[in-house]
Amino acid sequence: MKGLDIMLNPKVTAVVGVSTSNPFSPGNVIFRKLCFENNLPTYPINPRGGTVEGQPVYKSIQEAPDDIDLVVISVPAKYVPGVLEQCGQKNIKAVIVISGGFSETGNSGASLQDEVMEITGKYGITMVGPNCIGVFVPEKLDTFFLPSERVARTRKGSVAIISQSGGWLIERLEELASRDVGVAAAISIGNAATTKVHDFVEHFGDDKSVTAILAYIEGFGQDDGRKFTEICARVTQKKPVIVLKGGQSEAGHRATQSHTSSLAGSAVVASSAFKQFGIIEADDEDEVMAYAKLFSFPERPMKGNRIGCLTVSGGHGVIATDEADQYGLEFPAFTEEDQAAMRATVTPAYQGIASFRNPCDLTGSASDTDYEGVLRVMLDIDYVDAALLLLLPYAPGISLQIGARVANVAKLKNKTVVAYVPDLDKYEVIIRGFEINGIPCADTIEEAVQMINGIRKRSKYLQRIGRL
Amino acid sequence: MKGLDIMLNPKVTAVVGVSTSNPFSPGNVIFRKLCFENNLPTYPINPRGGTVEGQPVYKSIQEAPDDIDLVVISVPAKYVPGVLEQCGQKNIKAVIVISGGFSETGNSGASLQDEVMEITGKYGITMVGPNCIGVFVPEKLDTFFLPSERVARTRKGSVAIISQSGGWLIERLEELASRDVGVAAAISIGNAATTKVHDFVEHFGDDKSVTAILAYIEGFGQDDGRKFTEICARVTQKKPVIVLKGGQSEAGHRATQSHTSSLAGSAVVASSAFKQFGIIEADDEDEVMAYAKLFSFPERPMKGNRIGCLTVSGGHGVIATDEADQYGLEFPAFTEEDQAAMRATVTPAYQGIASFRNPCDLTGSASDTDYEGVLRVMLDIDYVDAALLLLLPYAPGISLQIGARVANVAKLKNKTVVAYVPDLDKYEVIIRGFEINGIPCADTIEEAVQMINGIRKRSKYLQRIGRL
Repeated sequence: MKGLDIMLNPKVTAVVGVSTSNPFSPGNVIFRKLCFENNLPTYPINPRGGTVEGQPVYKSIQEAPDDIDLVVISVPAKYVPGVLEQCGQKNIKAVIVISGGFSETGNSGASLQDEVMEITGKYGITMVGPNCIGVFVPEKLDTFFLPSERVARTRKGSVAIISQSGGWLIERLEELASRDVGVAAAISIGNAATTKVHDFVEHFGDDKSVTAILAYIEGFGQDDGRKFTEICARVTQKKPVIVLKGGQSEAGHRATQSHTSSLAGSAVVASSAFKQFGIIEADDEDEVMAYAKLFSFPERPMKGNRIGCLTVSGGHGVIATDEADQYGLEFPAFTEEDQAAMRATVTPAYQGIASFRNPCDLTGSASDTDYEGVLRVMLDIDYVDAALLLLLPYAPGISLQIGARVANVAKLKNKTVVAYVPDLDKYEVIIRGFEINGIPCADTIEEAVQMINGIRKRSKYLQRIGRL
Repeated sequence: MKGLDIMLNPKVTAVVGVSTSNPFSPGNVIFRKLCFENNLPTYPINPRGGTVEGQPVYKSIQEAPDDIDLVVISVPAKYVPGVLEQCGQKNIKAVIVISGGFSETGNSGASLQDEVMEITGKYGITMVGPNCIGVFVPEKLDTFFLPSERVARTRKGSVAIISQSGGWLIERLEELASRDVGVAAAISIGNAATTKVHDFVEHFGDDKSVTAILAYIEGFGQDDGRKFTEICARVTQKKPVIVLKGGQSEAGHRATQSHTSSLAGSAVVASSAFKQFGIIEADDEDEVMAYAKLFSFPERPMKGNRIGCLTVSGGHGVIATDEADQYGLEFPAFTEEDQAAMRATVTPAYQGIASFRNPCDLTGSASDTDYEGVLRVMLDIDYVDAALLLLLPYAPGISLQIGARVANVAKLKNKTVVAYVPDLDKYEVIIRGFEINGIPCADTIEEAVQMINGIRKRSKYLQRIGRL
């Protein structure tokens, strides 16, 4: 889609709806972001003229220069059609409409939205919104109308996010930033009057810098569910698409009515259809985070359900086993020979204390070399499809280098390896050691198991379509 | 139990198993903690004598002074019976055995453990362990054998924790510290040869400074399950007891065998029995955290299942509705009158944008006063048993004072109020504003709903036994 390319890579922008009296109005917040954070030439527009941040304000799109790629509109709903008409006449191809007061507010708003769609259709304008918080592309474009201090500056990365809820999107960006996961783009789709979730899925599907696409969806408009799965069927051959559906319970579905009401009454695409087309469904926000982090790392396959688990705490092993069982993942028993091979790698004094069953519990006496040695043997076992490393680094023999050391062992094999390390400042060296060497770190045991479950779902689909 | 009182409040301690050559041996770590962190007179003991940290080392318990209240033992398993014999002869009543190599290692270890139990029985010694990481009482006692930098210094508070897994316990302390929840004590129960989980439940049940008791249990020894529920039946009349059971899946149960194997084969007390006696069962570690935080706050009752939900993001409202539905909690529809009353409290310009259905969505235009006004009306509604405040503070009109402001409104009514605020440094002022005013803050929507579910379980039980 040409329009989306222009929207996400503008050279010159304009903001319609800056205020000369209130520097904190949404239009002004967006204007300052585009100018000073994104360093984009940006024209402020307000019918009353004047100046904003020392720049002359143009009275209309018509009066502004001709080189505008993207217009962000933040004016009361009733003025939006007029502004769009001017954009069309000026041959502007990309518009983001922040303004609310359309189909989400009832009948009069819905007819206003129809009017908007007619104009964008007539001129071939690619529009995101209305009733959205904007679009964010790290180091490039930020049209969120929220003050900078209210939204995390998530770093540039490879996960693209599309959301029907602005609040949900902001929350994910905060969380991703705090877990050091980068994003390629974050899209608040709003009422999705013309540009739909599937348009962005298609766009990011073709973008080689995007490794995974994440979407929060409350419902689909007429025919959009079908289009969504059709597009996903193509995209999921190349990269994972993860969906969290809001309003799955009956009560939750009713709650969507007062939120994204334009989608009311539309059929929710069934989980079975998602599964059929390789769309990975997340059950809740924790799982979204697990998958987002997992798929921001280079994919390693997991050809079966069998996990080898390595821990320094028996209790953690037990909890991981319970969790894995919920997802139908197995901890196969290690053969006597394999147990002996693992035992032989461990410091002699502790060979009698450690357990080499699965989970393999090296106890609080474990050291880095013990951990490395056992993992090396474990990853060579043919009935082990993935390794789960539980690494609460409370054991005094575990050093801060363990992440890098163990990750370097994991590199030798093309198998899924996921680590659990609590996400605390004091363990940052360990987490970075793992992650710069390609091993994602979960911050709970549950998240680690969810990550393995995610990669298993992905591998299973690729196996089914003959790509693994 | 007199012995536990002595153990948790010692005036003078001794550590058997300090090393004069390795300052990082477990015994030395414990010795330094008792001396320098807890400021307790502590005698170091090693048959070879010498000095440690400038103090003369006694060659045996026998040779040490007579005023010892608590002995911590960290010597190879085979020497433990001899040390205990000396403790008994010296009339020492409290002992913590860190050493591993007992029933958890198989038959020979089991007979050593029997020997230990005979000695403690003969002399009436209260013993925790063997095979434990120790006991921690903030500002008083720390016998964890882990270096200080490996364990969070959780602040003093009102939640007591007892765990069959040392790793699990350390992990909880880290997490509680990071969420600013204090603990009254943290007990690694180890093999529970003599002192059982139920002994500590009874002890903390009688301790007025403890508001909630949390236990991680993989299984019970012969008759211990029955004793546990009997004691809990008494304690839960006074305060909540929360249990996470490890090894609930068949695979997980097998994994407990190589961990706390002394408990192998014992019947796992059924969830139904837990329910009958008012024990609150947590499904996973997230729920443990939710309950621990919730019950560290003064309890407010929740007399029915009905929640009024207040949000600034429609998506968050939808997700909360889905979550609540899973727990059988309801968001009752607000009457037209009540909706009108809420609408009347909101800034006129936004009355048309906000939705006053349940969840009530004030949108990103909401301000502190809007939030306060609507909550005031909501808490007065007789078909609302609790309020759930979803407060991603991304809305520009929400100030950092909102926590305290809203909490002060909540104070006027004796109903459960729980807030969701992301646990980020930049929102610390908001979170503190809520929490010093008695409203617990969850760091995910799911956790907030789990908290409400926890208080509902508690209130339901109190209603059943006629105490609410």
